[in-house]
Amino acid sequence: MAKKVHKPIGNHYIVEASGCDPDIIGSVSKVQQILVKAAEIAGATVWAESFKKFSPKGVSGVVVISESHISTHTWPEYGYGALDIYTCGDDVDPEKAINYAVEAFGASTSHITEITRGIDDNDRIYYHSIITWEEDFGEIREQKTNKRKSRKP
Amino acid sequence: MAKKVHKPIGNHYIVEASGCDPDIIGSVSKVQQILVKAAEIAGATVWAESFKKFSPKGVSGVVVISESHISTHTWPEYGYGALDIYTCGDDVDPEKAINYAVEAFGASTSHITEITRGIDDNDRIYYHSIITWEEDFGEIREQKTNKRKSRKP
Repeated sequence: MAKKVHKPIGNHYIVEASGCDPDIIGSVSKVQQILVKAAEIAGATVWAESFKKFSPKGVSGVVVISESHISTHTWPEYGYGALDIYTCGDDVDPEKAINYAVEAFGASTSHITEITRGIDDNDRIYYHSIITWEEDFGEIREQKTNKRKSRKP
Repeated sequence: MAKKVHKPIGNHYIVEASGCDPDIIGSVSKVQQILVKAAEIAGATVWAESFKKFSPKGVSGVVVISESHISTHTWPEYGYGALDIYTCGDDVDPEKAINYAVEAFGASTSHITEITRGIDDNDRIYYHSIITWEEDFGEIREQKTNKRKSRKP
């Protein structure tokens, strides 16, 4: 990682994706391809990958990137995929990764929290701030621009 | 993973640990040992580990566990360690992992958000709830019981 990006500020997205395609999120190879491509689209360098099918249907996986990680855990029987991505530095755009992965999972809606980490008031006591919003893709994704963003106190 | 724990509910802890010992959080081997032991203390099965030193001083690592992951990214020059752990099922106690890791990092304070993931209202539209609190260990950890917990709306 270049010295210029070694600030402690990072962004962590926590995403619950609903209405996902069970055939996609139930396939280890498809989920792995999607997460690796998501990391690449975000501009991250992939170091390592670990994916596994778990009983009875789900997939669990982590892509380790130079700027931290992107992970998922899926429940095809509920059409539900839990995703998170944590990145540091200005060279990576984690929102691109999330947008790509959620769309590739075939999700109809997603509930997203963005956590800005490593903030301090010049006292080296670090904390994070939180924003949560919903995205509704609609059955034919016509509502994709229907994004609501609300800051939680 | 046993079928009984295949519910979509999971717990994700996002932790900013401040005042950490630079000699500990700057050492790849020490950070790796701490995270692996944290996973074991929580009752998780370790599948894979990926740790790396990054320029100029930090350590970045992920332990992939059967119930998802525990990761860290450290900045020894600021005494700051970012940690997160995501687990599903009733067989793992992620708070034990966090408590162990934060103490092993030598942190004086931590800012913690617990995200309960995979909640729905029987409509398969999943969301999460959020609680944030601070822990102040004090210089000699006398204030360790001084835990404040506040529910964020």
